[in-house]
Amino acid sequence: MSATAVFPCDVTPASAPVPQALHDRYCAVRAESLARAAPLSVEDQGVQSMPDASPTKWHLAHSTWFFEALVLLPHLGGYRCFDERLLPLFNSYYETLGSRHPRPQRGLLTRPALAEVMAYRAHVDAAMLALLARPLPAELADLVVLGLHHEQQHQELVLTDILHAFACNPLAPAYRPPAGPVDTGLAGRAEWLAHPGGQVEIGHAGPGFAFDNEGPRHAVLLQPFAIADRLVRCADFADFVADGGYRQPLLWLSDGWALVQGQGWQAPAYWRRSADDPDGRSVDGWQVFGLDGLRPLDPGAAVQQLSFHEACAYAQWAGARLPTEFEWEAACGGPGLPAVPGRPDLPGPPTLAGLQEAFGVAWQWTRSAYDPYPRYRAAAGALGEYNGKFMVGQLVLRGSSLATPPGHARATYRNFFPPAARWQFSGLRLAKDLP
Amino acid sequence: MSATAVFPCDVTPASAPVPQALHDRYCAVRAESLARAAPLSVEDQGVQSMPDASPTKWHLAHSTWFFEALVLLPHLGGYRCFDERLLPLFNSYYETLGSRHPRPQRGLLTRPALAEVMAYRAHVDAAMLALLARPLPAELADLVVLGLHHEQQHQELVLTDILHAFACNPLAPAYRPPAGPVDTGLAGRAEWLAHPGGQVEIGHAGPGFAFDNEGPRHAVLLQPFAIADRLVRCADFADFVADGGYRQPLLWLSDGWALVQGQGWQAPAYWRRSADDPDGRSVDGWQVFGLDGLRPLDPGAAVQQLSFHEACAYAQWAGARLPTEFEWEAACGGPGLPAVPGRPDLPGPPTLAGLQEAFGVAWQWTRSAYDPYPRYRAAAGALGEYNGKFMVGQLVLRGSSLATPPGHARATYRNFFPPAARWQFSGLRLAKDLP
Amino acid sequence: MSATAVFPCDVTPASAPVPQALHDRYCAVRAESLARAAPLSVEDQGVQSMPDASPTKWHLAHSTWFFEALVLLPHLGGYRCFDERLLPLFNSYYETLGSRHPRPQRGLLTRPALAEVMAYRAHVDAAMLALLARPLPAELADLVVLGLHHEQQHQELVLTDILHAFACNPLAPAYRPPAGPVDTGLAGRAEWLAHPGGQVEIGHAGPGFAFDNEGPRHAVLLQPFAIADRLVRCADFADFVADGGYRQPLLWLSDGWALVQGQGWQAPAYWRRSADDPDGRSVDGWQVFGLDGLRPLDPGAAVQQLSFHEACAYAQWAGARLPTEFEWEAACGGPGLPAVPGRPDLPGPPTLAGLQEAFGVAWQWTRSAYDPYPRYRAAAGALGEYNGKFMVGQLVLRGSSLATPPGHARATYRNFFPPAARWQFSGLRLAKDLP
Amino acid sequence: MSATAVFPCDVTPASAPVPQALHDRYCAVRAESLARAAPLSVEDQGVQSMPDASPTKWHLAHSTWFFEALVLLPHLGGYRCFDERLLPLFNSYYETLGSRHPRPQRGLLTRPALAEVMAYRAHVDAAMLALLARPLPAELADLVVLGLHHEQQHQELVLTDILHAFACNPLAPAYRPPAGPVDTGLAGRAEWLAHPGGQVEIGHAGPGFAFDNEGPRHAVLLQPFAIADRLVRCADFADFVADGGYRQPLLWLSDGWALVQGQGWQAPAYWRRSADDPDGRSVDGWQVFGLDGLRPLDPGAAVQQLSFHEACAYAQWAGARLPTEFEWEAACGGPGLPAVPGRPDLPGPPTLAGLQEAFGVAWQWTRSAYDPYPRYRAAAGALGEYNGKFMVGQLVLRGSSLATPPGHARATYRNFFPPAARWQFSGLRLAKDLP
Repeated sequence: MSATAVFPCDVTPASAPVPQALHDRYCAVRAESLARAAPLSVEDQGVQSMPDASPTKWHLAHSTWFFEALVLLPHLGGYRCFDERLLPLFNSYYETLGSRHPRPQRGLLTRPALAEVMAYRAHVDAAMLALLARPLPAELADLVVLGLHHEQQHQELVLTDILHAFACNPLAPAYRPPAGPVDTGLAGRAEWLAHPGGQVEIGHAGPGFAFDNEGPRHAVLLQPFAIADRLVRCADFADFVADGGYRQPLLWLSDGWALVQGQGWQAPAYWRRSADDPDGRSVDGWQVFGLDGLRPLDPGAAVQQLSFHEACAYAQWAGARLPTEFEWEAACGGPGLPAVPGRPDLPGPPTLAGLQEAFGVAWQWTRSAYDPYPRYRAAAGALGEYNGKFMVGQLVLRGSSLATPPGHARATYRNFFPPAARWQFSGLRLAKDLP
Repeated sequence: MSATAVFPCDVTPASAPVPQALHDRYCAVRAESLARAAPLSVEDQGVQSMPDASPTKWHLAHSTWFFEALVLLPHLGGYRCFDERLLPLFNSYYETLGSRHPRPQRGLLTRPALAEVMAYRAHVDAAMLALLARPLPAELADLVVLGLHHEQQHQELVLTDILHAFACNPLAPAYRPPAGPVDTGLAGRAEWLAHPGGQVEIGHAGPGFAFDNEGPRHAVLLQPFAIADRLVRCADFADFVADGGYRQPLLWLSDGWALVQGQGWQAPAYWRRSADDPDGRSVDGWQVFGLDGLRPLDPGAAVQQLSFHEACAYAQWAGARLPTEFEWEAACGGPGLPAVPGRPDLPGPPTLAGLQEAFGVAWQWTRSAYDPYPRYRAAAGALGEYNGKFMVGQLVLRGSSLATPPGHARATYRNFFPPAARWQFSGLRLAKDLP
Repeated sequence: MSATAVFPCDVTPASAPVPQALHDRYCAVRAESLARAAPLSVEDQGVQSMPDASPTKWHLAHSTWFFEALVLLPHLGGYRCFDERLLPLFNSYYETLGSRHPRPQRGLLTRPALAEVMAYRAHVDAAMLALLARPLPAELADLVVLGLHHEQQHQELVLTDILHAFACNPLAPAYRPPAGPVDTGLAGRAEWLAHPGGQVEIGHAGPGFAFDNEGPRHAVLLQPFAIADRLVRCADFADFVADGGYRQPLLWLSDGWALVQGQGWQAPAYWRRSADDPDGRSVDGWQVFGLDGLRPLDPGAAVQQLSFHEACAYAQWAGARLPTEFEWEAACGGPGLPAVPGRPDLPGPPTLAGLQEAFGVAWQWTRSAYDPYPRYRAAAGALGEYNGKFMVGQLVLRGSSLATPPGHARATYRNFFPPAARWQFSGLRLAKDLP
Repeated sequence: MSATAVFPCDVTPASAPVPQALHDRYCAVRAESLARAAPLSVEDQGVQSMPDASPTKWHLAHSTWFFEALVLLPHLGGYRCFDERLLPLFNSYYETLGSRHPRPQRGLLTRPALAEVMAYRAHVDAAMLALLARPLPAELADLVVLGLHHEQQHQELVLTDILHAFACNPLAPAYRPPAGPVDTGLAGRAEWLAHPGGQVEIGHAGPGFAFDNEGPRHAVLLQPFAIADRLVRCADFADFVADGGYRQPLLWLSDGWALVQGQGWQAPAYWRRSADDPDGRSVDGWQVFGLDGLRPLDPGAAVQQLSFHEACAYAQWAGARLPTEFEWEAACGGPGLPAVPGRPDLPGPPTLAGLQEAFGVAWQWTRSAYDPYPRYRAAAGALGEYNGKFMVGQLVLRGSSLATPPGHARATYRNFFPPAARWQFSGLRLAKDLP
């Protein structure tokens, strides 16, 4: 397994972080996972509310298993496995790495206890820090960096998954106290930003980390288009609901309309009708469940937890469309952006003047299926299973969300989910053709 | 709601326990629930491994809800509800008492926390003890007694349900340490005990508590039959498995054979093939999962966690049949039996000399559908929902099991489960016709 | 395979019909099957509208297969099989007789064509008539008689199954032209007929044919009861619907209420709301689909196509209950009854003076699970699969229906279906306890 | 509804066929449908073997309904509807045009009879021919042309769907007699054809008909690639099977591997193990079911009835990949090709010298999700539902098959099916990157 195979998109081996930096980063990322779990009780951390979600405890263990199975066991001589019986329990989907506990049964694993998982983390951390204390071959350093980005992906899932579980609980528990009053005062009209189209470069070009699915970098032809400067707001989406958006089949793709009817969709998944206006004819008719519990709908907040189908239907209703992932990336300006002042974790200002909320609010569904880029080829071995085998039946989301950990977002980042998924921090930004 | 309605099978009102006795019994039963939960971690107590099972925490809360909803709220003036939001969460199936949280989602309730459920229990206990400190009308005392028997039913389910969850865990956790060596030395042949048949009285006749489904007492005609003096042993059942019992359709009822094929049944649910004899051709080929974990098959132990269909197929293979519930009760001698020395909780020696293991080992499937007794009529109101509405599609089991709490077994007791259920402490005893 | 094994309920071998009579009866029964298929097009005869129903063509072939597989192939030397490839296609559920085409796929068999099935019938008929032309051993004659009763069972299913298919067709085709005006003028109140209870004899006692599940004849104790002189009428049932019967959970058994909610039941399966009174508040609000198409509800007609659950809920609403199968048989007077003048096919007048509609209108759900009678033992071999293996999860229906062919009804007849089945000609008769 | 809206891909209105030509073409296409149904019995024409397939009779009626609902009713003054009750029965998926009979129940429609559907066809044909006898506005002529292409699509489905039904029948009926001996002698190695990549024009450019999803024509950048000169042969695919291709998870996309395991896939859907070599280790081990029945595997025949997942796994195993739809179209040479001598219905020779079997053998899965082309916009109204609403969750197939009717294939044609579909005439052609 070579680093080239892992990072086929032109990662310069010389870009490997110096040991101290990697040590610090390892500590910071691992600490963030625990910080995200901290508000949750032992019981909360064990629950799995649907097959697609996982318990917090499982996320904590799986991201640890990644370091043990891919870094320590093959690369650290003399490493003693914490408990071999745990390996199949916390392998997610790597056929290369042996058998796996069935995904829908992750919530049944009351043993190992959370305390044992914490001991597992400590055991692996100790070994990892010992490893990181010495000079590493570039490939191994790159593998550690991949493990950290992997853990960051699960940090976001810790929040999406517990939010789904809490949304199933009639007591509507809050993950955290409300940050302030509901009305962010952000309502108002979006502006269209024009892009001339033409040939643009798409995909990651080093230096710096990227997942293999972000490359190879290649040229794409775009036609002139406009993209909204901001995300669709809850007030906008409430208009769609009030206008019967969930009752008009012609607004929906065929599969989407089947979901609306079969699942009884009437509004976004985490919207609840409020007692004030039970018919939901105005924004006062809704409460929205989120990390801070069940609160009145904030008209200016970005709508979230949308499926691709709801995003598509909204765009159709609004006389617009979703951007392709290439349009999105072109609007965002691509890689190599300067940092946002005070937020070194976020990519810099986009090329398209005025573009807001590209990162840190909600992932943005695109109209692009998650197909491989030209000349993409998954690596051999376990790492080849990381992204490539999911490249069918999914749609690309771009940007990042309020749940994305610092340092994890990137203009070339290709997030992906099936079109029916509605438990992510996923919203939309409109686009349209220009002559 | 009158006591007559609740206990339509001739309970003499005068049979109500004296206050001090009821107080003591209340305390003892409530303590037993906590004792059963004690070996379980907070995580264990929250898990639900299938829709038919419930978390320990839910059992602890639901049995408390029963006292709050049926005793305290309607009968104790000035009682303050612990938390009204919990009422629908812990109502099991009483349409009369309002809405209910969906059964398959009981495991998603990480809130209220276990500690809050314990506080709920303490709150209700305090009110109940206050109530029990004064003279009670007989009907109310009877209602409390019913609540205690209800809680005892859930005490058994605490064990069956956590055992199912543990059986799903590849780590095979043990609920309790093994009590001793595996071989009980009880293997050997069963003896047939003859019963002359004729007219027998079936069903509960006071004094003493019984569920409404145990009455009215009535006469039934039996033909001469023989019944085995003991339960079918694991060694016996291993012979059935080794003889291809799970591969011969003619041994099975039609629905049973469909389950064998559709679910891939090859042995009892909690049997695991051991490495010593992976083909399972001998008793050495099996390990059995139970409350004390995964252990070698004990040839002399009663086979457990059987479905009705497996019990029926075994009996067919053995050239015998299951007893009817009436034969079982006649063999057992009916109500009013003297106590077993040293086990005041168990019914006394059966009329049929030599009958063993009627109680305290494994529930025994009968060949009787769970139909109402003649003139049975469910009470009006919530208590009428206790038993009557389940009287279709289920089979009667008689006796009691190792998981049945002291004082809960009774010769007239009618336990019932669907024919496919295989997570109870359920085995079988053979019967046959006599000329 | 001995006749004793086939008919364990005391059929006197001497009762075997004389050859000429059996020849005539064979011809008559076989002709009746074709007569029932005659109004149906080739297309109609091929359709299967649900897994539990079968195409007419399949019924015609399967009843022929029964004679070929059980009579001709084993008993007629030199018999040439029509086409061996058809044997698994038309074996219904006999594990003893080889593999079987999956039941839900019977409607996919466009080949063999209907014309080939007709040729199959002719081929088997020729061989059967040759066989019947000579003196037969009693066991073989009994087997032929069984085959004829078997075919008669499928004659009823031809009508129930095509009616289900037609009910799925928005064009609402009629199997036959209406026999006359809708209003039979039979509305009015039922009368209660009293029975003193006591020890009664239940089950078939020869001479004459009976299925094995009707025996052995045995004594049963009954308590005093009353039974309605007639079946529940559509007008009665419309009152139940209008009174919210399908919206009151306490009227239903638990499984029944789950069906009401899960399947959206609001009325009997073949009732359709009419434009005249779309809220269904009166009998004018309904049309009923039947063999003569979609017609206005006839208040005086017996309600049909009810599930056990609907029958049970109605009885609960009416303050009554369903009779047990033993009460029904006792009321009907048991076997050995004189013939009805002009209807030699129907059992004679019942013992209970005034009992009407026992036969020829609608099967009557009883409150009895389909359990084996005492000392019932299925025969060895294929015939043992006829009835015995279905003795769990089903309820007994008694009487016969308008679709039952002449000569097939019997006071001891035990029809059986799962409690959710609602495509049979099944209604109900009320019963109640007497002091 | 304007023709521009219907054909947004630059169809020149002047291209509308002259009346006589359109009349002749109408007659020819309509006759072809009947010709395809001719070998099928009345019973065959009524069967629906799965929800995704439709009965022949339904196809015959639906393609007629298209002309009635979209041409005659809105555009032919005084047209008398054949039977208004049929409109919802034969509307496939047009929400704009009223309610629809549930798709999985099309096989239940034994009425209207096939003869009535033939009368329906004759009724509509008479009206259509009257309409076509006069000069038509270009938009209306275009609409008729669309209806003919629509009917041709259903002509292919007549064959795919009846083949699926026949494949479910153990008698393995043949749609037509075998055309000749099995071995086509075509086995042998494929050659790679190189394409330099660069900017290519993709999509339909008039004149001539195209579906809306084939446009707008637009430029795409390609990288150098090679494409196989022929389709993958059965001999090739048998090697894949024999090499354990269906047992190696790393060859499959994640969803594909789940299908392999969940559905028990072991070979292409219509391959059957032969008695000669039941382990399937050689090509002699297989029989293949097709329009001419069950025949020995022809090593040189193109493998068919593959799902996308099987095509993808094969390509992975072969060290190659599927082409994108753009690569396929570039290799094929795009629109405006000269006719193949003697086959005026097929597009002309491709630009890439040596490319064989582009048309007329098997549809070829591509690695392209069925996404809209840039600036694609579905028409308003019913015609907008034709293609656009299916643009998610499907993969593009290119070329045409042996079942595609003459005159229907086109280099820009975008066929589409879900990745699990394996009942079409769908195979694959390999591609690979060039430096």
